[in-house]
Amino acid sequence: MKNLVGAMMFAQSGGPTSVINASAAGVFLEALNQENITAVYGAAHGIKGILDEQFYDIGKEDKAELELLKYTPSSALGSVRYKLKDYKVDPTDYNRILEVFKKYNVRYFFYNGGNDSMDTCNKISKFMAESGWDCNVIGVPKTIDNDLMGTDHCPGFASAAKYIATTAMEVALDARVYDTGLVCVMEVMGRNAGWLTAASTLANLSGQGVDLIYLPETPFDMEKFVADVQRVCASNENKCLVAVSEGIKFADGTYVGEFKASKTDLFGHAQLGGVCSILANVIKERLGVKTRAIELNLMQRCAAHLASKVDVEEAFEAGRHAVLAAVSGQTDYMVAYERKPGDKYEVEYKLVPLTICANTEKKVPQEWIINDGTAVSDEFVKYALPLIQGEWETPKENGLPRFARLKKVLVK
Amino acid sequence: MKNLVGAMMFAQSGGPTSVINASAAGVFLEALNQENITAVYGAAHGIKGILDEQFYDIGKEDKAELELLKYTPSSALGSVRYKLKDYKVDPTDYNRILEVFKKYNVRYFFYNGGNDSMDTCNKISKFMAESGWDCNVIGVPKTIDNDLMGTDHCPGFASAAKYIATTAMEVALDARVYDTGLVCVMEVMGRNAGWLTAASTLANLSGQGVDLIYLPETPFDMEKFVADVQRVCASNENKCLVAVSEGIKFADGTYVGEFKASKTDLFGHAQLGGVCSILANVIKERLGVKTRAIELNLMQRCAAHLASKVDVEEAFEAGRHAVLAAVSGQTDYMVAYERKPGDKYEVEYKLVPLTICANTEKKVPQEWIINDGTAVSDEFVKYALPLIQGEWETPKENGLPRFARLKKVLVK
Repeated sequence: MKNLVGAMMFAQSGGPTSVINASAAGVFLEALNQENITAVYGAAHGIKGILDEQFYDIGKEDKAELELLKYTPSSALGSVRYKLKDYKVDPTDYNRILEVFKKYNVRYFFYNGGNDSMDTCNKISKFMAESGWDCNVIGVPKTIDNDLMGTDHCPGFASAAKYIATTAMEVALDARVYDTGLVCVMEVMGRNAGWLTAASTLANLSGQGVDLIYLPETPFDMEKFVADVQRVCASNENKCLVAVSEGIKFADGTYVGEFKASKTDLFGHAQLGGVCSILANVIKERLGVKTRAIELNLMQRCAAHLASKVDVEEAFEAGRHAVLAAVSGQTDYMVAYERKPGDKYEVEYKLVPLTICANTEKKVPQEWIINDGTAVSDEFVKYALPLIQGEWETPKENGLPRFARLKKVLVK
Repeated sequence: MKNLVGAMMFAQSGGPTSVINASAAGVFLEALNQENITAVYGAAHGIKGILDEQFYDIGKEDKAELELLKYTPSSALGSVRYKLKDYKVDPTDYNRILEVFKKYNVRYFFYNGGNDSMDTCNKISKFMAESGWDCNVIGVPKTIDNDLMGTDHCPGFASAAKYIATTAMEVALDARVYDTGLVCVMEVMGRNAGWLTAASTLANLSGQGVDLIYLPETPFDMEKFVADVQRVCASNENKCLVAVSEGIKFADGTYVGEFKASKTDLFGHAQLGGVCSILANVIKERLGVKTRAIELNLMQRCAAHLASKVDVEEAFEAGRHAVLAAVSGQTDYMVAYERKPGDKYEVEYKLVPLTICANTEKKVPQEWIINDGTAVSDEFVKYALPLIQGEWETPKENGLPRFARLKKVLVK
């Protein structure tokens, strides 16, 4: 545990979320308050900004704009998908990072991302320690997928969940408006974990929502799917709303998104519209009912106008706690949420070793997946509902959200 | 002009909007106040509910739930796509409507919809007059497409516009997050009029929004499109956000949505994902840049959580004014908005003959379409911006919108 004096570097990685910048705001505003932190830097495009020596002097930003980061979706500094090799295999990047850290006296490093980023964070932390360069390294979690181990949930998940549940409610009303049948297949993000697709079922609390859900945790069977939809249609005037994870797989492990539906010309080729189009086409072909494929696309991870207040506040605090931990001498940890026991929802911020979260995935528990893989139990609702509470009152300009406008002054 | 005493019938038609039920709330709450209206009925699934004698007794609903209709998307009574024939060709349906109106002493009829519905409304009005059955008929406008003649704008347009502009802002941030290029093609509703696609440019007031737009008002040229995108990419790190109307057409009148892009297996077949997928594939093939197709789908017309307050209030008032007009003896009119001159945005409610709006389409004026068909002028901004102002504070339950729950008691 070392109390260091020097600059700090913050970087954002992986796919953005509605609240990723709330964590940035927490990191920056807390860091600017800390006497031991002599300069506050934000790397352009994650780790790449460090390698390329492209980073912004956050001290030159207006505080009011940094506050607005709380409400601003996407990665304000730019993101990257770049996986560092093991430094025992190839230390080039690590040596370069060390060189940059030394040049700018970077004594604090914060990396904001998911599993891969926590792995990167862990490797950098270890390399700095082995190189004898004192630098406290703390990971700040971020992923709409909610699949990081060691934390009750992940910043970003709740806002995506709130968007998905709200949209499922609205679409459920719209899709049932005619006197004719319609099967809607709504595609939700999540390659390996079905948390977001499960969140669509929160819509059902209102009385009308999704009829069937399919998660990557359960092997997908096309015949069973057709039969499930047919059953719902039979009892519901041929109306059915389905939510599916983009990452659903057949029992043999192949993605449903790569399925070639039939021999007909129209369906015999790889579809481009994603798994929702494929499933909608199969239903149309097999059941002869009208279908509609709806991909929630980027909106589910960037609809900051519908961010959960709980999520924004927690993401901000996660950033703040990362700084507080680092200046108090901690290193090689990720900030995590621990849910306090009891009926009232509350979290505590704790530190978990980066190795716990690096390259692991937390999935929806099998015992929460019910109805032959087409629904989730009340346990999920109990888990997820407190997270989507509260609306963040995004400041407005021209009737539209007023997002942060950073100056992004590059450090020379 | 006849002051009638009797029951009233209200019906919803065509595609729903975020605020269609706000007009229903205006109609119902005003009608329940009127002494001359002896019963308030809402037809299930538009005109079909009248033909099938399926309608709800609105008097049996809780007032609080009727108030909640203001915030509830989609057609609460159910909608229909059913076009009445000319009664001179086939009077069957008209005779049936007359029969039902006589049976229930329906003296007021209100139809809520777009061009086709105003046509239906007009025919029913004329038929009732010719049949000697006193019945005041008033149309209530509704369409996100904003293409009705005789009114400054249409209820429903502003909320869809606000959703599209907000989403364009959010997607613009998300789609530019990586250090690699990405061309996003966002598909917006509108078969013949480009009002909604034009609304995406309101995002640009924030500094980042759409780079190119393509409206059905301008013939689409694929080579020019590729060149346009290439030009934006060249000056913008291969990043480009495009908004296109679903209804864009080539100069020969064929829909771009039916385009078969090239001879390759992957692209040689009719695409299923809509015009955004087709254009994204063409760009990928021709420019070799990463692309993403985003269809705003049903969300743009049902995202009541993002409704414009101006739109909700005006839609409600449009409903109220329809009732006030009918009970004061008017018939064969549609309620319309007239924008008052001056800098401060204000509307007056007026009546226009149904024949003006029946089966006509108001398009984006050619002089507002600039930059060789890829942008709209400040005139459009001046027109549209006042309409998207204000957020409606949807009541919440469980952190999700609390939509109206009607009892829907069928009239025996």
